Amino acid sequence: MKEKLEKLAKLVRYYILISTTEAGSGHPTSSMSAADLMTALMFGGTFKADLDNPDFPNNDRLIFSKGHAAPLFYALYGAAGRVDEAELKTLRQFGSRLEGHPTLAFPYTEVATGSLGQGMSVGVGMAMTAKYIYKLPYSTYVLVGDGGLAEGSQWEAIQIAAHYKLDNLVGIVDANRLGQSQATMYGHDVDAIARRIAAFDWETIIVDGHDMSAIQSAFDRAGRADRPAMIVAKTLKGKGFSFFENVEGWHGKALDHDKLADALRELGTVDRAQTGTIGTPKKMTPARTAPVKAVPLGYTKGASIATRRAYGDALLRLYPEFPEMVVLDAEVSNSTYAGIFGAAHPERFFQMFIAEQNMVGVALGMSRRGLTPFISTFATFFSRAYDQIRMSQYSRANIKFAGSHAGVSIGEDGASQMGLADIALFRTIFNGVVVYPADAVSTQKLVEEVASHQGITYMRLTRQGTPVLYGNDEMFPIGGSKVLLESDDDLVTLVAAGITLHEALAAAAELKSDGVSVRVIDLYSVKPIDWQMLERAAAETRAIV
Amino acid sequence: MKEKLEKLAKLVRYYILISTTEAGSGHPTSSMSAADLMTALMFGGTFKADLDNPDFPNNDRLIFSKGHAAPLFYALYGAAGRVDEAELKTLRQFGSRLEGHPTLAFPYTEVATGSLGQGMSVGVGMAMTAKYIYKLPYSTYVLVGDGGLAEGSQWEAIQIAAHYKLDNLVGIVDANRLGQSQATMYGHDVDAIARRIAAFDWETIIVDGHDMSAIQSAFDRAGRADRPAMIVAKTLKGKGFSFFENVEGWHGKALDHDKLADALRELGTVDRAQTGTIGTPKKMTPARTAPVKAVPLGYTKGASIATRRAYGDALLRLYPEFPEMVVLDAEVSNSTYAGIFGAAHPERFFQMFIAEQNMVGVALGMSRRGLTPFISTFATFFSRAYDQIRMSQYSRANIKFAGSHAGVSIGEDGASQMGLADIALFRTIFNGVVVYPADAVSTQKLVEEVASHQGITYMRLTRQGTPVLYGNDEMFPIGGSKVLLESDDDLVTLVAAGITLHEALAAAAELKSDGVSVRVIDLYSVKPIDWQMLERAAAETRAIV
Repeated sequence: MKEKLEKLAKLVRYYILISTTEAGSGHPTSSMSAADLMTALMFGGTFKADLDNPDFPNNDRLIFSKGHAAPLFYALYGAAGRVDEAELKTLRQFGSRLEGHPTLAFPYTEVATGSLGQGMSVGVGMAMTAKYIYKLPYSTYVLVGDGGLAEGSQWEAIQIAAHYKLDNLVGIVDANRLGQSQATMYGHDVDAIARRIAAFDWETIIVDGHDMSAIQSAFDRAGRADRPAMIVAKTLKGKGFSFFENVEGWHGKALDHDKLADALRELGTVDRAQTGTIGTPKKMTPARTAPVKAVPLGYTKGASIATRRAYGDALLRLYPEFPEMVVLDAEVSNSTYAGIFGAAHPERFFQMFIAEQNMVGVALGMSRRGLTPFISTFATFFSRAYDQIRMSQYSRANIKFAGSHAGVSIGEDGASQMGLADIALFRTIFNGVVVYPADAVSTQKLVEEVASHQGITYMRLTRQGTPVLYGNDEMFPIGGSKVLLESDDDLVTLVAAGITLHEALAAAAELKSDGVSVRVIDLYSVKPIDWQMLERAAAETRAIV
Repeated sequence: MKEKLEKLAKLVRYYILISTTEAGSGHPTSSMSAADLMTALMFGGTFKADLDNPDFPNNDRLIFSKGHAAPLFYALYGAAGRVDEAELKTLRQFGSRLEGHPTLAFPYTEVATGSLGQGMSVGVGMAMTAKYIYKLPYSTYVLVGDGGLAEGSQWEAIQIAAHYKLDNLVGIVDANRLGQSQATMYGHDVDAIARRIAAFDWETIIVDGHDMSAIQSAFDRAGRADRPAMIVAKTLKGKGFSFFENVEGWHGKALDHDKLADALRELGTVDRAQTGTIGTPKKMTPARTAPVKAVPLGYTKGASIATRRAYGDALLRLYPEFPEMVVLDAEVSNSTYAGIFGAAHPERFFQMFIAEQNMVGVALGMSRRGLTPFISTFATFFSRAYDQIRMSQYSRANIKFAGSHAGVSIGEDGASQMGLADIALFRTIFNGVVVYPADAVSTQKLVEEVASHQGITYMRLTRQGTPVLYGNDEMFPIGGSKVLLESDDDLVTLVAAGITLHEALAAAAELKSDGVSVRVIDLYSVKPIDWQMLERAAAETRAIV
């Protein structure tokens, strides 16, 4: 086996070299350091997946958190016979499935990476899905670089993985010593890295990342661990090639054709006809529950109910209709009212503690495995995870964000707790949906709408109670709006949403008593926006406020 | 001393109770758990500060990273005779200096807090300023909660503090076991907390957080440590009051007047006339260098230079003129060209590794101590630190952000590396400045402008070379714009900035050859924006693109 793996690793290195030279850019040296580790994982009997069916629920999962090692990622599937040499040479070309950092254009990519330190959280989400929801025996593997370990999000993921006792999660640190511009914080001190991770109650296994037998033993040990395991591998950046092995100044640089010829000479004979074999997963699929129509609403018009409260009630009411629902919260579930769901369905409610970045990554991992995560915290604290939110848009995420305590109306807690830029943040998400309900009925209906919608949605919630405005049968399609006050002689139009709608209604009433008619529109769908209605209002009234 | 401290702690508890009951909200229980720790720090001889002069450079620094313990923070200054009882009763009232979470309205607040897990990074910045720049012996103390320890940014700060051997930094974990909605991840297992921190090479000291003598010994030991020290204190939330001590469900709740009466009975006699004494710092001030006019520019029009390169050159050129400058980078300094400065002035260049949240917090701490930090990474990776950027606007931060690799023009590295929403993010900052230079001259001049400007500024930089457009004497005031092409018969106006300006110029040239005149404006100042020029263009041409 050792010999076979070494032969395959040669082929993998060959693919890395030719694809990056053809591209004229990319990260061959960062790929070489992990080439032996990943070859052993994929073709040494550890990794099990049905490559004809990348979505098969019991496939093992492999996440390249160090996304710049994309040439290695594609080369592995080349060695598995899934990408031919001609396609490998399209690396980084416009229109190719093989982008500079992995994206879902390539069918074996679990999640788009490239912003460092995010993959472990996604892996935690996939491992939690397997262990706690779908009860499947697949394992999740996450390759991280030593440079990216400096990101705090890694440590959020590390602590939560231990908390949830994820014995089906294996991390691999490719400690190649060299970052982009200089040595990493701990360089080749793999003991220092392992000690830090072990302190968080992970199994840690130090290994020479270029010794196939040692690597295989490490994966065996990791597989037997009763908790998350991290293989900390001492590796050499550019391993295998004299002129860039363990040499500074070679980050993110491809070889020119002359240097490629030198490198291929050093590599020696490569058997390009060989194909690595990947293990077959057990034919198991998750038990799923059939949807059952939710009970209807029974609100009374005028009753004062905070939309955050209606959100919690909606999760509980709608779960039968959306049985893939899971709920995550960042230790404020008594404020967001997500705790209502948690109390009723503790097996589908996950406390993520005060670590918003990891919460978003976990939700992404769960969503990639088919769940519908609803995740909540104070609106402003999603800003902590904005990079994770940004990256999730490149992974066809299906995450339902809910942010409470939006706007200045929370008052005395002060600006640090107020969601002021949350709409701006979520509006940047490509194809994202932003809704901002004004009462309990529209909140409930919009929870239903976002649950049905495939994609990233954000719901803005208010702390204070607001009166119920709508009848229980009113519908609130995404992209719509509601005209609450309208007459032929409206002077201006007031457009509002959420708690500001109630201020607009009060202003309209005051103006009415002065004999001035104004139109009032509930723009509950902030994105997409109801242009048609706004254009009509612009045409029919003198101004829009 | 022990007896004196215990008497003062009683007074502190009294102030916490009366102020939060008067406010009708706030966090008395989270304040009580740390009351003994902070009383011992402030009045036990450890903390040294000239309270008549909160800005005195050699004052010790105290940061409440758990900002919700604000009632305790104010009560300490009450016990120090700096806030009277009448003012303490204005807690959380509109217009009061005593906000629900500390802000700079209160003169002893080092930095606004309230978004958890950020204070340690700020403390690192203050400790680095003392140790590496100003060579002052002051110490920096940071109070963190056990709940907030879950934030990854804490671990970024913990690792970098050890890396920079900050023996002048002392953290205090107030491990009171209870979060907002449930127990924290490690509850009262202070060994688990200490083990994790010790693994990062901190001195860790476990202590009973309600034993004055033990606390004093802990501070002594921390002060003698040759590296950063963390006091991990086992405490009781609501300590001292039978009905809420160590009881769930009391987070963020004030006592009503009846319960207050009960609590005051339990507290017993309080000597409201006593005043705690704080130690006097050594009369030392930082040695500062006088500014020297920078050498003039010598660019040649038409030469192709990337604005990121001009940014690095500008830092080096302008440092004599702005001697409070320090430069931080997140391990991409060969891409942002901040490394040009680093090579010339290693003593003022700080490698922050791939941990953007901590980098922003450190910069905030340095800026609060009087330095002018220029901090750089890829534009998109500032999104990782958006919550820190958001919070810095509440602390009169003077931070100069520079984001390279903006826009789709970076091409084959893919969307994960592209700064696409960076302008949107930085435009949300109150009074923030956003500039986007198109060539080397305007980059250099805008670095000078932002260095002179007091506040948060963001400069967007391009990876590719772009031709020099301007003469070396051209000026680029913040809020301005440049008209590059203009005639009386301009059909439309093209408004562009950065690399898109060159596309606009190319389009104008093409249209010119078709006989169509268009106006071209370089809108290098995205915020504030040159409305006057845009309004003129709107009036004089048929459309603005």
